Amino acid sequence: MTGLNATHDPAHRSWVSSANAPGGDFPLQNLPFAIFRRAGSGESFRGGVAIGDQVLDLGALHALAPFAGLAAEALAACAAPALNAFMAQGHEAASALRAALSAALRTGSTLEPGLRGLLVPQAAAEYQVPADVGDFTDFYSSIHHATAVGRLFRPDNPLLPNYKWVPIAYHGRASSVRVSGEDFVRPRGQVMPAGAERPELAATRRLDYELEVGVFVGRANAPGENVPLAQAEGHVFGLCLLNDWSARDLQAWEYQPLGPFLAKNFATTVSPWVVSLEALAPFRAPWVRPAGEPPPLAYLDDATARAAGAIDIQLEAWLASARMRASGVPAQRLSHSTFRDSWWTVAQMLTHHTVNGCNLKAGDLFGTGTQSGPQPSEAGSLLELTAGGRQPLTLASGETRTFLEDGDRVTLRGWCERAGCVRIGFGEAVATVLPAAPP
Amino acid sequence: MTGLNATHDPAHRSWVSSANAPGGDFPLQNLPFAIFRRAGSGESFRGGVAIGDQVLDLGALHALAPFAGLAAEALAACAAPALNAFMAQGHEAASALRAALSAALRTGSTLEPGLRGLLVPQAAAEYQVPADVGDFTDFYSSIHHATAVGRLFRPDNPLLPNYKWVPIAYHGRASSVRVSGEDFVRPRGQVMPAGAERPELAATRRLDYELEVGVFVGRANAPGENVPLAQAEGHVFGLCLLNDWSARDLQAWEYQPLGPFLAKNFATTVSPWVVSLEALAPFRAPWVRPAGEPPPLAYLDDATARAAGAIDIQLEAWLASARMRASGVPAQRLSHSTFRDSWWTVAQMLTHHTVNGCNLKAGDLFGTGTQSGPQPSEAGSLLELTAGGRQPLTLASGETRTFLEDGDRVTLRGWCERAGCVRIGFGEAVATVLPAAPP
Repeated sequence: MTGLNATHDPAHRSWVSSANAPGGDFPLQNLPFAIFRRAGSGESFRGGVAIGDQVLDLGALHALAPFAGLAAEALAACAAPALNAFMAQGHEAASALRAALSAALRTGSTLEPGLRGLLVPQAAAEYQVPADVGDFTDFYSSIHHATAVGRLFRPDNPLLPNYKWVPIAYHGRASSVRVSGEDFVRPRGQVMPAGAERPELAATRRLDYELEVGVFVGRANAPGENVPLAQAEGHVFGLCLLNDWSARDLQAWEYQPLGPFLAKNFATTVSPWVVSLEALAPFRAPWVRPAGEPPPLAYLDDATARAAGAIDIQLEAWLASARMRASGVPAQRLSHSTFRDSWWTVAQMLTHHTVNGCNLKAGDLFGTGTQSGPQPSEAGSLLELTAGGRQPLTLASGETRTFLEDGDRVTLRGWCERAGCVRIGFGEAVATVLPAAPP
Repeated sequence: MTGLNATHDPAHRSWVSSANAPGGDFPLQNLPFAIFRRAGSGESFRGGVAIGDQVLDLGALHALAPFAGLAAEALAACAAPALNAFMAQGHEAASALRAALSAALRTGSTLEPGLRGLLVPQAAAEYQVPADVGDFTDFYSSIHHATAVGRLFRPDNPLLPNYKWVPIAYHGRASSVRVSGEDFVRPRGQVMPAGAERPELAATRRLDYELEVGVFVGRANAPGENVPLAQAEGHVFGLCLLNDWSARDLQAWEYQPLGPFLAKNFATTVSPWVVSLEALAPFRAPWVRPAGEPPPLAYLDDATARAAGAIDIQLEAWLASARMRASGVPAQRLSHSTFRDSWWTVAQMLTHHTVNGCNLKAGDLFGTGTQSGPQPSEAGSLLELTAGGRQPLTLASGETRTFLEDGDRVTLRGWCERAGCVRIGFGEAVATVLPAAPP
């Protein structure tokens, strides 16, 4: 667990004035990392850190050699076109760089004149997936989501007997992880119409979003080495937003017995900004099992987890249809939940993932699974919000939705706030559904 | 479909005399590719091609610049420490290089004097996984395996309704794909003992092998681009052997509803040698659906597939326990099946994988799923051979086995033979089970 330090001090302000605006995602206390370049420039991609509405160019900063020691080593790694090497250095390096950046961007820093020219407006930047994702693992950590979805697929048996014991997960597709802003084509696949004798190939009619947190692995573990719970967070670099787009009709037909495949692997959208675990330290919360629920097995249980294993991240999904955008109707919030309600913590997920000796590499990505809360209004997917497509939602434009239509744009947002702390945000993960390609 | 050419001519012999020995895996007509170096040398890994009991060093060959045009471009890509760039070049480049190598290694080649010094005995080589595997997908293409396993997990419902229509697959773990010869530790994980009220963490007691063919993707497809069946083989580089080690007790407890995870992702073993699709051309066979079975959906069906979509590869799994090796008892063959019995062809797998626009990258790996034949003796896993552990096998040493014990060494072999053709082989994929780490 990362402790509080000067980078969290709410009294500190930045000479980048937009970073001091209340309610912004990227104050001096956040300093999330991304891979970026000036949009349309053809420049090399390199690391950047968000400050207010700007990106500080870490590639250019590295060329100035402003830091020494571990912070300089970390900065050098951030000049690369992917954050894997930086993530691999572990928390000490990230913390040293964060401290150095915090001081450099603080009001009164002597570095201000040299750094002003290294700022790129976020509005003028384009991004890549922050790391070369070696493996993408998607968990299923919201018991509220698992119960609601289980009820639709197995009305008689919504929550399977293993759920409360096993941090359920499956391997997803790394090649189709995309950064916010990259749209995707509605996928086709086999579906089995109700009452039909044979399946058909069709564009999905039940396209959904899933409101998830993404987790980037930092320090690797060797093959055969399991990571104990007390050390698990030492292998986590930071968190982002993740939309695990899902084709529910493909999923229903294909998922037995080996799980989702084409229903999920056409696209997964992540936010460009990775918020370090250190930046999230002020927003830790107790991880609580409701009364009467069994404690987890010993390898997934310790006092530290119980004291502060959870992270209180507010999560939202917003929809703007093509018609809404054309007619100036603002986007509409469909989902709002908190990651604090997760049945499993990030550390438990990582420890479980490695208990069999599975090796994780820096830049590997986890999804937490759809984060739904205990209330029906806190559902993190359309599947839940529309009761499997049986109860359409009415949008502000007068349109109705069971599942996503072509032209729909979904935006995920996330942030942390707490009395006495400066609010920090995750930016957004957005993509628009494009019409299916002709067969 | 790749046609026959001079590289397949059975009359051709090599000046590497071991390549002309009858029954060998690596005659002049094969020329499979690997990534290798001299064992213990600390040299850089680079590409090599097998000829008899030797490896021709393609990194050193590239330095001699013996070829021109496409073959030279392909050879340059083979000097890298992974075959991804070579695989990405597509069939034309691989075919050009294969033709140039075939001529260079043929008896009477003027290149013989220069090439003699570039041979490394296979006995003195060590290997890496042939490509940096971006994503590993495991199919489930043997209906005999699916039926037998389904009977154990779901006696009332062995073959699910989607099986005959959908090339079922799930995403596996890329980070734990290992090359033949890398041993692995028996994994631990959650298991639910029969009749228990809560699961326990234990080393797996039901460790199994799975006899599979591996498929390396060559040319990539773009996100959103589906690959029609007629073009699918143009995206396949070649085939290898693959052992999808499985912990059946972990699998039984974790696999619902999202499929296998820790039961499979601790280790997957591939053979070092990748046999190109071109080398397999003489061993194509009709792909036949048994009478009375439904034809596949149109996107998975064409005349070419029906004429020669299958590949007749003989597959074997051999077991040598620690006691057998210590006492000189030879390894014992447990499984023997043929890939020709697969319900789906490689092209159908690739087309299905991309029908939703999922992008494949050069060096991505498929497993075909355990290849079991219609006879019980043709089962490709211990789960099937021992009826879920209820009918132990007796080994030549007098030991019995339901599942794998510590010290057991499993070797997969594969080869193609046909009247009028030179037999070609896949080498082997071997690994030994090491005891579980202390908790």
